[in-house]
Amino acid sequence: MEKQLLIMGMAGSLRKGSYNRALLRAGVELVPDEARLEIFDLEGIPPFNQDQENSPPERVREFKSRLKAADAILFATPEYNYSIPGVLKNAMDWASRPQGDNVLQDKPAAIMSTSTGMLGGARAQYHLRQSMVSLDMHPVNKPEVMVTFAPQKFDENGKFTDEKGREVVKLLLKALIDWTRKLQR
Amino acid sequence: MEKQLLIMGMAGSLRKGSYNRALLRAGVELVPDEARLEIFDLEGIPPFNQDQENSPPERVREFKSRLKAADAILFATPEYNYSIPGVLKNAMDWASRPQGDNVLQDKPAAIMSTSTGMLGGARAQYHLRQSMVSLDMHPVNKPEVMVTFAPQKFDENGKFTDEKGREVVKLLLKALIDWTRKLQR
Amino acid sequence: MEKQLLIMGMAGSLRKGSYNRALLRAGVELVPDEARLEIFDLEGIPPFNQDQENSPPERVREFKSRLKAADAILFATPEYNYSIPGVLKNAMDWASRPQGDNVLQDKPAAIMSTSTGMLGGARAQYHLRQSMVSLDMHPVNKPEVMVTFAPQKFDENGKFTDEKGREVVKLLLKALIDWTRKLQR
Amino acid sequence: MEKQLLIMGMAGSLRKGSYNRALLRAGVELVPDEARLEIFDLEGIPPFNQDQENSPPERVREFKSRLKAADAILFATPEYNYSIPGVLKNAMDWASRPQGDNVLQDKPAAIMSTSTGMLGGARAQYHLRQSMVSLDMHPVNKPEVMVTFAPQKFDENGKFTDEKGREVVKLLLKALIDWTRKLQR
Repeated sequence: MEKQLLIMGMAGSLRKGSYNRALLRAGVELVPDEARLEIFDLEGIPPFNQDQENSPPERVREFKSRLKAADAILFATPEYNYSIPGVLKNAMDWASRPQGDNVLQDKPAAIMSTSTGMLGGARAQYHLRQSMVSLDMHPVNKPEVMVTFAPQKFDENGKFTDEKGREVVKLLLKALIDWTRKLQR
Repeated sequence: MEKQLLIMGMAGSLRKGSYNRALLRAGVELVPDEARLEIFDLEGIPPFNQDQENSPPERVREFKSRLKAADAILFATPEYNYSIPGVLKNAMDWASRPQGDNVLQDKPAAIMSTSTGMLGGARAQYHLRQSMVSLDMHPVNKPEVMVTFAPQKFDENGKFTDEKGREVVKLLLKALIDWTRKLQR
Repeated sequence: MEKQLLIMGMAGSLRKGSYNRALLRAGVELVPDEARLEIFDLEGIPPFNQDQENSPPERVREFKSRLKAADAILFATPEYNYSIPGVLKNAMDWASRPQGDNVLQDKPAAIMSTSTGMLGGARAQYHLRQSMVSLDMHPVNKPEVMVTFAPQKFDENGKFTDEKGREVVKLLLKALIDWTRKLQR
Repeated sequence: MEKQLLIMGMAGSLRKGSYNRALLRAGVELVPDEARLEIFDLEGIPPFNQDQENSPPERVREFKSRLKAADAILFATPEYNYSIPGVLKNAMDWASRPQGDNVLQDKPAAIMSTSTGMLGGARAQYHLRQSMVSLDMHPVNKPEVMVTFAPQKFDENGKFTDEKGREVVKLLLKALIDWTRKLQR
């Protein structure tokens, strides 16, 4: 029997009622038994300053050590200005520095996004993928989870209630697990 | 005689010795008399949180009011992980919110970038351009200023000493001024 | 009274029943009186070969001279493999060569796209925009016309029947006209 | 002992003296014994027309069957207008159609590019990578082969003479082989 995988998830929004945070919580419920999904909250990660990269703040050190320990990474990202939020990009900038200490190196990864509009965060996903080339990460291709018109798909408690959407989140997590196993062999 | 234009410049790095900050300072020297270039330092802009967008911190309010007053915007951006730094994207996220108060709306803009490597920040520039579609900004197309191998082109005091590079920065600023005049007519 | 503008439109698909060709025909009906929209059919444009750029085939010469005469360009593009079709990109490659004879130089432009799926061709539009930086074109930012789920919005005769969609096509054409006037002043 | 892998290479330019074709020929010499690199010439692939996708021309059928037989794909692409050439994109459009017969599906892949300018085709590579998400291909991340200032690095017979460049092409081919073995396990 193979060991349970650890997936580290992070959401690109700090908003309390964020749909992407809610989507990530749905992931925690939906992840197959072969893995567990933990969430790291980006609250408290300060703006990256390269002058501090060799002695980063405590919260950043914790972030990096949690990422390092993970078998795979799951991003749940809103789309701000047709790209990923500065908050998420900033966290990745910390995670990749200093040179030689990129803790995302070689990690399998998956992306989900949701937005209030019709594109579901698509534009953010492709920018994130380009950064993953630099970070030397390995994102799964399919399924692409882009949850459109978020207000119709989450209830007042932030529960992701869309049945088809829940199904595809499960498929993405299964794909991430299989892809991670393949790359770890 | 036309009024002098105000260009607001910002650099995407917080590092004290940043080459992009140095490039922006070169811009201040090189800008034609028809405009003056002021620099806004992104230090102190906290991570964007949509819950605070209606009552942003003082430093963000100052940032937005300075942008609003400007005729045009100049970005000097490093490339982190094949995109713009989180720090710069985060500032743009604040600038564009809340809905209906995007202070970058309709602004003419120009981009410069420099990096220690061979691409000079090119990948960051195209991500930035995509965000400008969302922000409804109007970037100039040419010349594209991508200063490669930065350590050879700045001296120990952070002075941009590359003659050809200085010439192209001047051309970019001239192009931005002409473009701004055209759009303001 | 200002002269009527000439907009040259092209669709990125050669398929007879193409939804994007149909969308372009809707544009011909919907364009305000201040302009007329003519369509150039990309059928017959052969694969670009740089060895032939100085003496291109007759169909390419005609294409280039039609583009040159236009005040503005309108693209109606499907999305193939998350980008613009090779057929459309190929036409642009011919249009921009040889060096010094880029007939798209400085042209104002607008983009529409439609697809059978949920993204309406969005990914193709941003790739096209990046090429326009190289071509030194000036695309309008808004509105972005991305017609989703095409089979529901065109009738069996290829008529674009979606009322909201027709409205936004009209707005895009109006925006293109205003933008062209501004840039020609 | 593992079987020798078959890598199918294609260049995005039809020009006889193309630097990218020359780069691909260098790949044939430099590929480690564990694989052989065959070249498919895109000459003769007509513009894609979806009306013909179910009975494509003979040259396209040959192209698709050669791709299908390959263990991995190698692209050598020029950059035209800040993206991949229409000629290359067009070939990929044929390769992926009709639905259910995407012969590039699941293929490991690598990209090389060269240009006469300073960016070495970088912008083309990231557009190509986005299409690979759609095609469900698996490109290697590193090393990225972007050969700048091509005229200085190829001799009059089209031989790639740059020693450092040859080394990195070899590393890329080795990385592609290892990546292919891993994904085939």
